Amino acid sequence: MAHRVTVYEVGPRDGLQNEARTVPTADKLALIGALAAAGLRRIEASSFVSPRWIPQLADAAEVTAALPAVDGTSYVVLVPNAKGLDRLAVALARAGEGHPPVEAAVFLSASETHNRKNLNRTVAETLGELEALVPAALARGLRVRGYVSTVWGCPYEGPVDPGRAAEIVERLLALGCHQVSLGDTIGVGTPNQTRRILGLLRARARPEQIALHMHDTRGTALANVLAGLEEGVTTFDASIGGLGGCPYAPGASGNLATEDLVYMLDGMGLETGVDFRKLVAAGALAQRLVGRTLPGKALQAELARAAPAGG
Amino acid sequence: MAHRVTVYEVGPRDGLQNEARTVPTADKLALIGALAAAGLRRIEASSFVSPRWIPQLADAAEVTAALPAVDGTSYVVLVPNAKGLDRLAVALARAGEGHPPVEAAVFLSASETHNRKNLNRTVAETLGELEALVPAALARGLRVRGYVSTVWGCPYEGPVDPGRAAEIVERLLALGCHQVSLGDTIGVGTPNQTRRILGLLRARARPEQIALHMHDTRGTALANVLAGLEEGVTTFDASIGGLGGCPYAPGASGNLATEDLVYMLDGMGLETGVDFRKLVAAGALAQRLVGRTLPGKALQAELARAAPAGG
Repeated sequence: MAHRVTVYEVGPRDGLQNEARTVPTADKLALIGALAAAGLRRIEASSFVSPRWIPQLADAAEVTAALPAVDGTSYVVLVPNAKGLDRLAVALARAGEGHPPVEAAVFLSASETHNRKNLNRTVAETLGELEALVPAALARGLRVRGYVSTVWGCPYEGPVDPGRAAEIVERLLALGCHQVSLGDTIGVGTPNQTRRILGLLRARARPEQIALHMHDTRGTALANVLAGLEEGVTTFDASIGGLGGCPYAPGASGNLATEDLVYMLDGMGLETGVDFRKLVAAGALAQRLVGRTLPGKALQAELARAAPAGG
Repeated sequence: MAHRVTVYEVGPRDGLQNEARTVPTADKLALIGALAAAGLRRIEASSFVSPRWIPQLADAAEVTAALPAVDGTSYVVLVPNAKGLDRLAVALARAGEGHPPVEAAVFLSASETHNRKNLNRTVAETLGELEALVPAALARGLRVRGYVSTVWGCPYEGPVDPGRAAEIVERLLALGCHQVSLGDTIGVGTPNQTRRILGLLRARARPEQIALHMHDTRGTALANVLAGLEEGVTTFDASIGGLGGCPYAPGASGNLATEDLVYMLDGMGLETGVDFRKLVAAGALAQRLVGRTLPGKALQAELARAAPAGG
């Protein structure tokens, strides 16, 4: 098991894009600043998908141009296509010298139906587009991260053959992605399955090329992280406060909460560089900004401990 | 890792005793019946502590006398002292022949302050009393389970020396307890710590003599269960719907939810004998009985899936 683990924060993008309330640009930047101040070194800041699809992130260019420069922290923004890449390039040009590093992330699903519902294309068609998009991003000097959704299961198709994800990961790495994040989009994963998926990837990717993006919908996220750690994974995605949970049910969760992840990694003596107290402060800020109680458990436990008796 | 795992259900006792609303006796029995019908074979039904301490379980005798006989299912009730044991004996005598098996559970804490706040005695004094109580229960033909609280940490003292728990476990087993459950009362445990604690017990107890009672206060319960499984533990305590969570904060959790545990064990191909769909039905019943949304994640995910769109 590696001694040092990278916590990849997705809250400002994956979290806020799933919140009913659109957070103002200045508040997004305050949250991103709080996350960077807590020691998070990789933060997914926004997405250059069409504002018609995701109005919550329509200010991607403004957010990207104003990202706070914090020593050691780099940012990632989602880029769905050539148009998104152009918008990102314009935003970065506007930001000019001294701007913190920003990389691009591209995405698709392991299951056909989810990919079609999300991107209106087959997986093969999407891969074909990425064969142009990833090199185009690299040519602009951007590092590129890949995302594969529905690796553990699909909301439409149910179980997904892990061989599908393995093939897609191999393709994305061959295109030049420096890392591919495997997403348990609907939070159905369990540890032996996680080990099987990672086992298939062992011959195709170095450990640092793989990240796990687990959802805590059924409480299994940290058990899957533990299985991943045991298999050598060193990067785990998480969302501050569990931001971006499924708002369809009170208490229901989507993304693994960053505080829960860091709490466990700290307890295991693994170095993350994250200050847990500052992270909880960032979680409290996220909760105020979206105006609802977030599902992150360690966040709620810490806030309850901090509250006056009976409060 | 064992192929067969015992899920020990604590909801009717540990759950309901921590709920603000006292559930009527008939409703408790309906919940217990639903849990047994779901395939749970060990159910903690009530507690013979003084009704002045825990009014929610003042009907321990009535519940015990009316426990449903379900093939293979045995019940457990907490017994704090000789008076509690007498009350249990009277209840069992009243129930008469054909009554399902009922065993006694005794309890103390690994940390002095928690034991004093809970039992108004030192740990040594409590162990002294158990030296009489456990043999007295055995003499009445009862099997006895032991509980050790605050093994992973104490709300008053912070970290707890795992050697304390190991000594207490050894004493309880020597007295004749067939199993001792280790409780992470405040949900601070992380997997390496769990492995250390279990490592200390390896020379003192057989795997089936140890149970883990993890709390999910910081989202780590199932990661600790996974570590326990890898260390050979075969019995895990859980509470239907996460019943008995800390009511001090919305969304805050105490007990590991039985549905989350069974979901993970099922996914790992481990046999529990529990029917997940019936378990979710029992969780929905528990939620109706206590009149609040329970924190169990798999329960909420399943209820949301079952709800009509937009519901």
